[in-house]
Amino acid sequence: MIISTERQKRPSDFRIDRVTALGPEDCPFCAGREEFTPHEVLAYRQNGSAANGPGWDLRVVPNKFPALKVEGSLEREAEGMFDRMNGIGAHEVIIETPDHAKTLASMSEAEIERVLWAFRERMLDLKKDIRFRYILIFKNHGAAAGATLEHSHSQLIALPIVPDFVREEIDGARRHFTAKERCVFCDIIRQEMASGTRVILENADIVALAPYAPRFPFETWLLPRRHGARFEDAPRQEYEGLARLLKSVLMRMNRALESPAYNLIVHSSPFTEETREYYHWHVELIPKLTKVAGFEWGTGFYINPTSPEEAARVLRDVRL
Amino acid sequence: MIISTERQKRPSDFRIDRVTALGPEDCPFCAGREEFTPHEVLAYRQNGSAANGPGWDLRVVPNKFPALKVEGSLEREAEGMFDRMNGIGAHEVIIETPDHAKTLASMSEAEIERVLWAFRERMLDLKKDIRFRYILIFKNHGAAAGATLEHSHSQLIALPIVPDFVREEIDGARRHFTAKERCVFCDIIRQEMASGTRVILENADIVALAPYAPRFPFETWLLPRRHGARFEDAPRQEYEGLARLLKSVLMRMNRALESPAYNLIVHSSPFTEETREYYHWHVELIPKLTKVAGFEWGTGFYINPTSPEEAARVLRDVRL
Repeated sequence: MIISTERQKRPSDFRIDRVTALGPEDCPFCAGREEFTPHEVLAYRQNGSAANGPGWDLRVVPNKFPALKVEGSLEREAEGMFDRMNGIGAHEVIIETPDHAKTLASMSEAEIERVLWAFRERMLDLKKDIRFRYILIFKNHGAAAGATLEHSHSQLIALPIVPDFVREEIDGARRHFTAKERCVFCDIIRQEMASGTRVILENADIVALAPYAPRFPFETWLLPRRHGARFEDAPRQEYEGLARLLKSVLMRMNRALESPAYNLIVHSSPFTEETREYYHWHVELIPKLTKVAGFEWGTGFYINPTSPEEAARVLRDVRL
Repeated sequence: MIISTERQKRPSDFRIDRVTALGPEDCPFCAGREEFTPHEVLAYRQNGSAANGPGWDLRVVPNKFPALKVEGSLEREAEGMFDRMNGIGAHEVIIETPDHAKTLASMSEAEIERVLWAFRERMLDLKKDIRFRYILIFKNHGAAAGATLEHSHSQLIALPIVPDFVREEIDGARRHFTAKERCVFCDIIRQEMASGTRVILENADIVALAPYAPRFPFETWLLPRRHGARFEDAPRQEYEGLARLLKSVLMRMNRALESPAYNLIVHSSPFTEETREYYHWHVELIPKLTKVAGFEWGTGFYINPTSPEEAARVLRDVRL
């Protein structure tokens, strides 16, 4: 649990679920409004344009209200029986486009691929910081999925620890490998391609699946066919294939589910572990269609009203 | 992950976050509309009133759209590399009041205590079914917290397995006991009472705390001071004390946070394990003030903008 004093809210701030649907006139992520963000740490710019001014296609900037701060060393202390560590970490925002009206679904495949390259570049850079063990890249699209600004963006958080959910996934994959000497994700891809009922789309490099026991309706996984543990080490054609499939899946969701809010999460290996044989990077896409309620908080189980076979069929059948 | 075919939804059903804010005229939980629910399995009735008609103070009925079904035996099978079991379980609704306008915060303490007694009675009854290992009791209040009907009600789900989150809590408590021969919850209560900064309210039997590392702003735990593993075995005065404290905490949240939606979850021991020495039943109350987004789904960590000390202070300082 991360207590973020940078984001400290007063009780009155919680009164309503605030949606900051800032139009282009007030948006800090639009071209020409670079002064409203911290200085960029990466930008893909047109020839001759100056840093922190207009003329960019994509920018990465530190989050103005970071959940974690990058300065300082990692300190651990006790408060009686409890353990505390200070919140070291990097929190960056990938502004995916200068155009306020574009979304990942409406961008070109080349523009989406550029976003994936930015993820890679920032990961490769932040990996050099020995304090960090894991980098999470995610996207909240739409207010219902937790986005506070509507201009299309992703987020990156570098963490000094391997998060619980990542730990569980890594450990599960390692157990499978220990028992069978095969990657569990490669096994899943093989079984799903053979049966076909939960396959949504595929191309030469990537497969989009409705996973066997999805937590959420229309939950979708995009996996590279070729085994590889680290997103940042993927070959060029996998970013190209992923961009193509991601655009198609998002357009299909927009059509079938009326442009839902969604969360997108890149699952990649921690830096500090040799997971090459058994882990397999992938992207999870969760449209926000149901509410997490008491049952889920009490059990960790999810009640999903849509079978993955039905979800895959619906998305496959959309005519674009 | 529970795939609920009883609740199967078509894609069009997901288009909007539906809120069924049925007024009293259409509400299936109001007095006089008993025909719209399955037959009651428990009711607290005024003298002489007949089952499944009006004249009740509280009713428990099977859920009309259960996540799990009570009939049949537990079967397990494989689909290739995946495991499946059929969804055996009981899913009941506790209709807390015949009055559409009442909430847990506006009920009398005696009415809240009656709800707690209904929880106990249903747990004691369902424990006799040897297929069940765990009973979860929870409440979703408000559409943002997942309630689909606004008439005040709680839910009970009996499960043939011990859920993941319960497993983790039980295992953590057992490890603490093995190391120290003390209950971790008793230790928490002692430390918090000594420091006082995270104590919200207390009475002779129950303590309400903002827990040390809360996942959510204003997350509140209500714990009995006396050690006991099972909610259903608690002595009468603990239900009385819990009803009193719960009402006060909910009224304070309503005042400080403008009547938030919330989830309430009863944490009690599984039936099938001897947890008497190390587990400690309690109630967790989570006002719905933030959204679960990509970071949380990717890590299992929660970013909480309000410290527990601040939350406890705000709730303590409310004038009722």
